[in-house]
Amino acid sequence: MVKSFSDKKSLSSSRSLPPSDSRQRVSEFMKGLQDKICAGLEELDGEGNFQEDSWVREEGGGGRSRVLKAGGVFEQGGVNFSEVWGKDLPPSILVQRPEAAGHGFYATGTSMVLHPRNPYVPTVHLNYRYFEAGPVWWFGGGIDLTPYYPFVEDVIQFHQTLKTACDRHHSEYYPIFKLWCDEYFYLKHRQETRGVGGIFFDYQDGTGKLYHGPLAESPAHGQSDAVGELEPRTWEQIFAFVQECGNAFLPAYRPIVERRQGTEWGDRERNFQLYRRGRYVEFNLIYDRGTIFGLQTNGRTESILMSLPPLVRWEYSYQPEPGTPEAALYETFLKPQDWVNWQANS
Amino acid sequence: MVKSFSDKKSLSSSRSLPPSDSRQRVSEFMKGLQDKICAGLEELDGEGNFQEDSWVREEGGGGRSRVLKAGGVFEQGGVNFSEVWGKDLPPSILVQRPEAAGHGFYATGTSMVLHPRNPYVPTVHLNYRYFEAGPVWWFGGGIDLTPYYPFVEDVIQFHQTLKTACDRHHSEYYPIFKLWCDEYFYLKHRQETRGVGGIFFDYQDGTGKLYHGPLAESPAHGQSDAVGELEPRTWEQIFAFVQECGNAFLPAYRPIVERRQGTEWGDRERNFQLYRRGRYVEFNLIYDRGTIFGLQTNGRTESILMSLPPLVRWEYSYQPEPGTPEAALYETFLKPQDWVNWQANS
Repeated sequence: MVKSFSDKKSLSSSRSLPPSDSRQRVSEFMKGLQDKICAGLEELDGEGNFQEDSWVREEGGGGRSRVLKAGGVFEQGGVNFSEVWGKDLPPSILVQRPEAAGHGFYATGTSMVLHPRNPYVPTVHLNYRYFEAGPVWWFGGGIDLTPYYPFVEDVIQFHQTLKTACDRHHSEYYPIFKLWCDEYFYLKHRQETRGVGGIFFDYQDGTGKLYHGPLAESPAHGQSDAVGELEPRTWEQIFAFVQECGNAFLPAYRPIVERRQGTEWGDRERNFQLYRRGRYVEFNLIYDRGTIFGLQTNGRTESILMSLPPLVRWEYSYQPEPGTPEAALYETFLKPQDWVNWQANS
Repeated sequence: MVKSFSDKKSLSSSRSLPPSDSRQRVSEFMKGLQDKICAGLEELDGEGNFQEDSWVREEGGGGRSRVLKAGGVFEQGGVNFSEVWGKDLPPSILVQRPEAAGHGFYATGTSMVLHPRNPYVPTVHLNYRYFEAGPVWWFGGGIDLTPYYPFVEDVIQFHQTLKTACDRHHSEYYPIFKLWCDEYFYLKHRQETRGVGGIFFDYQDGTGKLYHGPLAESPAHGQSDAVGELEPRTWEQIFAFVQECGNAFLPAYRPIVERRQGTEWGDRERNFQLYRRGRYVEFNLIYDRGTIFGLQTNGRTESILMSLPPLVRWEYSYQPEPGTPEAALYETFLKPQDWVNWQANS
């Protein structure tokens, strides 16, 4: 049952305790997710293989970065696993989780960005992460799709796969995390979404508050059931949900690659793809929390910036010609849409 | 005479008043500088012409953006003039100039970034700006050079031209503004300078305090004459200095283009140039005050991002081979050096 923000104070703030082997279980899942995704992508790519760099973090922990370059499908793909610990979380996180102040932290996660060569195959991003710090723990993450020449059926199928995964755990997950994704992957200076969205969430700690997004404090949200609160959930429930989301990636993305990989393309499509990749760079360097946090706190730069495309164009004052597929991307796809209930207007 | 920071409290904080026509005089200079630079660059380029977009800012003011695309020398070059006013300066500036709080502001400036096609010709940046807000006014700006395949003689000549311009106004300007440039155009996450530097300054308001850079509060600077304070200077003195700096750009840069433009290059040099251009993008989107401020305050996005290169590469884990010219860039040129007193080690 969803309650509106106006009565959130009446909800219990009791928090389920993680099991004693929580860190091991989550990091095993995150590593396994990296393995499974890499195996699935190599099969899909047909030519390329991931090369792994293991690294150790001086302050505690480490990771394994895997990159596939110049494959059959993927011009570049990176899949990272990391597990780190240390004394203090950065101020940007402590603002959201003040209970963590003064405590050591543990964090583990898997992240991925794929840049296909064929402009008809969309770029895609995945990230799931888990934190423990003193009395608090939480899960976050999401998956989002960034097409250049989008097809409505692909976008619906992608969203529907994520919705099905969410619905197995709670009927409120998909609508709220879909909204949050549209809000988070948004280029304010361009007034464009990064792509066609997907799902995104953060600070899922079982206390019932689902939405901690940019509009959480906006009066409009107090009137919307879509950003309300749930009954408390256990650590096990949320971990099961995150596993389902991680495992939904290949079924959501693989059919799109299989359908579009054979589509012929030329200079026009390539030029537009390289131009649009510039938006990915702009988002990741200007807005993305993970990227900025990583760079400012001496993370492993090469692993953090593995998300950047191998080749990118900028062009002053580019505007798509009206009536073209490029214009359709801007007019229809780079605005939030209710994809699972999509009805063609024509 | 330079005093150390430790006795700055004893210096007068009296501030010279700007003349009644200050705004008009500075904006005329900034517009004239744009004209002069564009004319000089078209002559140097030989093929390309600048195309102008005039724009109006809803909150007050406007500008003229000029872009040269696909020229003989320049793959892309942008030269912007703007003159804007409004109710409030952004918080990031008010921290440095608290006296401006609650007052309207006026700002005018010219900025430029050039991306040559030949990898032997360096990228270069210029920006000069002037602010008035209530009881305060100040000038800021600088010029810095970013080579891909640098030549020591070019770097020395560039710095010597800027030093000569500075020395005509005060012998302390060049050493302090050269240091500030090395500090400001620095990619912390790469531990690299952006290029071989030049000069950079901000908040020059005549009160004698020259250096307001990132290390101003560091104890080490209190012991260094190089970041001390001067006797107060008048508005006219500082404006004359800024004009000299603006006019020094063509003499500093043109000879380098003329010397290197004919150098032959191939895929190796082009690939390295595109890769290194990625650093320019990283700096401008992660660190550059003007870019971030502009994007976050509804500036004209296309004019702000005109500084981004037309084509860019990222490559995971790239390392130059030891003993190559690419390695020399990292080992010698992307570290602060005393260029005007440079002695070859060999």
